[in-house]
Amino acid sequence: MSVEIHTLSNGLRVATEEMPGLQSVSVGVWVSAGGRHERIEQNGIAHFLEHMAFKGTKTRSALAIAEAIEDVGGYINAYTSREVTAYYVRLLKDDVGLGVDILADILQNSILDPREIEIERGVILQEIGQTNDTPDDIVFDWLQETAYRDQALGRSILGPSDNVSRFSQENLSQFIAEHYSPDRMILAAAGGVSHDEMVKLAEAAFGHMERHPAAEPETLATFTSGEFRKLKDLEQAHFTMAFESPSYRDDDIYTAQIYAIALGGGMSSRLFQEIREKRGLCYSIFAQAGAFADTGLTTIYAGTSGSDVADLANLTIDELKRAVQDMSEAEVNRARAQMKAGMLMGLESASNRAERLARMIQVWDKVPDLEETVRRIDAVSLENVREYAEKFASQAQMALTCYGPVSDVPTHHDLEHRRAA
Amino acid sequence: MSVEIHTLSNGLRVATEEMPGLQSVSVGVWVSAGGRHERIEQNGIAHFLEHMAFKGTKTRSALAIAEAIEDVGGYINAYTSREVTAYYVRLLKDDVGLGVDILADILQNSILDPREIEIERGVILQEIGQTNDTPDDIVFDWLQETAYRDQALGRSILGPSDNVSRFSQENLSQFIAEHYSPDRMILAAAGGVSHDEMVKLAEAAFGHMERHPAAEPETLATFTSGEFRKLKDLEQAHFTMAFESPSYRDDDIYTAQIYAIALGGGMSSRLFQEIREKRGLCYSIFAQAGAFADTGLTTIYAGTSGSDVADLANLTIDELKRAVQDMSEAEVNRARAQMKAGMLMGLESASNRAERLARMIQVWDKVPDLEETVRRIDAVSLENVREYAEKFASQAQMALTCYGPVSDVPTHHDLEHRRAA
Repeated sequence: MSVEIHTLSNGLRVATEEMPGLQSVSVGVWVSAGGRHERIEQNGIAHFLEHMAFKGTKTRSALAIAEAIEDVGGYINAYTSREVTAYYVRLLKDDVGLGVDILADILQNSILDPREIEIERGVILQEIGQTNDTPDDIVFDWLQETAYRDQALGRSILGPSDNVSRFSQENLSQFIAEHYSPDRMILAAAGGVSHDEMVKLAEAAFGHMERHPAAEPETLATFTSGEFRKLKDLEQAHFTMAFESPSYRDDDIYTAQIYAIALGGGMSSRLFQEIREKRGLCYSIFAQAGAFADTGLTTIYAGTSGSDVADLANLTIDELKRAVQDMSEAEVNRARAQMKAGMLMGLESASNRAERLARMIQVWDKVPDLEETVRRIDAVSLENVREYAEKFASQAQMALTCYGPVSDVPTHHDLEHRRAA
Repeated sequence: MSVEIHTLSNGLRVATEEMPGLQSVSVGVWVSAGGRHERIEQNGIAHFLEHMAFKGTKTRSALAIAEAIEDVGGYINAYTSREVTAYYVRLLKDDVGLGVDILADILQNSILDPREIEIERGVILQEIGQTNDTPDDIVFDWLQETAYRDQALGRSILGPSDNVSRFSQENLSQFIAEHYSPDRMILAAAGGVSHDEMVKLAEAAFGHMERHPAAEPETLATFTSGEFRKLKDLEQAHFTMAFESPSYRDDDIYTAQIYAIALGGGMSSRLFQEIREKRGLCYSIFAQAGAFADTGLTTIYAGTSGSDVADLANLTIDELKRAVQDMSEAEVNRARAQMKAGMLMGLESASNRAERLARMIQVWDKVPDLEETVRRIDAVSLENVREYAEKFASQAQMALTCYGPVSDVPTHHDLEHRRAA
């Protein structure tokens, strides 16, 4: 299996990874237009536009788009994240041409019919309601906001209801003009498809798209310390903390990920063992090292009862400190093994492979060999992780966010005091 | 790719599907011991036992179990459903022997240490809290309870907190004695592993297990009509209905599934188009045909606002009636294509393949060829679906369950009246 990349004359990059033996193909377009590309008054518009893509083009109604894909048993969907909006299909391999054609159509010819905008507004307001009703979803939105206060990277993807109630056809068209330029798009495919075929399909479907003027460069994010807590009559107290950590482009990213796995990445991790296995204080607890282009966020999450949440918060701080003192070679070896095997097993899925191609090209403008990635993971030493643990536990800033029966959670100041003690 | 099955002398069945080219293997043990095998005072014990399997054996502590799997980058987990408890690992292929050894150990040598039982009680009570805080999870528990009132199949998997607070080592041992017999277990593996290797591993790890006396035959489930609604200050009104539908063993199962796909299985489905796309009343809406050994449950779910839920409920009933009148050949063709392609694409995952082997053997005592399954799907005609739609819409009983701002939902009686009108 090898990755091939071709750039069309308008700047759109085409990446293909053929997976012999697969009967299906996963293909999508990743557009560098996510939540962090919105100005404050635009917050929520990248996601609104993602919804509108399915609501009709010059030649296809919403129903015709859905029927075209589902007639051949395929699946079409999209998502919006902080840095990207992705539109993708999964199809049997003979239908890949249809898939690319539909993706090209919804990305270039969406009509943004005002009546459909009104209807979709209702759908998105319901989606916001659903998120607000799901505590372990919404608490991560608030954590992001605490960690990047008053910045595009901190705002929610769905946006506030007020914005969603207000966006017009003109607002949506403007966001397209600002961001949906072919040099900001990656067409990535994995599975039963050849690179030559993909390039031909891409040329025919996207080759005539014109480049827009460059969008404003996104502002660099700055991590902010702080606390947000919202009391609510829930059964669980949702406790989260975030610390700044390396960006995708940072050399330390693998060290940060290995540290996060050892801290809270699996059943043998420190947080799982100390807080769930030894004390039974929670069902869910984990740490993970997320990353963006210019910054990263390592988050810790646990759900517990209101009467246990103070203990849980203090114990979590203690684990950060203990990791500095006694992180072992065995733990680092295990975390490396988990990271490598997890990557290899994940890449048995065509959808994961296509996603990886697009993300790597967006971040690095190339797709490293698996062997290179494995070498970089193997190069992380115990000493690296220990140094990182020390830097991590001693850094000046922390974002704390809690939701539910959380009145007993120590204050940000008290947790920081414990961390420094 | 072909499936091979071997039965050990103690009755344990071993099923393997080798997938050439895969670097990983997914292997698990499916035990016929789920929620419906519990007596009322045992409700929640199958799931409690699933948790205890990871808490230590005669030779391995909880930490040693987690470390053994994660040292090689593997992943171990389990789930409990109404009809089965499953324990499974995913590993790189060279580590399959270790995986089978660990599965055998946690299934045969769990020590059920009373101190660990106390700790795990806390974990499960937190898990119950988490489910109670997730409206679109808990509403399905209540729907199941409405549809199979006062029966094992209707009770929740997690069980009531009172039971979880009470279960003892003796209760757990008794449930093992009643259900964890090798003739009620299936070891299924898919991916980079050969059948000969799996049989050898199974013989060594499970061959000396002794059969227990046969468990009490489970009682057949009887669908019950009724209504349950719980008012709560949520942003969304969660509306669900369930109708009895074919069991896994019923010849009509494929017709029921094709009908459910056409009704609410994708973006082109009737419910999605009429209620979300045309009117913007909801974000999530779907129908699906679930099945058990002796009965099935086709459920419809939608989340909307309190002010729209009455309309949504009435419109859903209208769609059931309209499906009787004008279900088209194109819709049936599309649903067949979705079902076939969905199955083929799903089977590119080793985990899905292992799961399919185990479920097929549990239900039919054999694994039908993919070709046979495709033939059965293709054999479903428009006339079959029309007849089924009529039978479905006119059946006497319906279970209605709502949660959130649902005071405006028409009563069961009113919805039934509209259905019959």
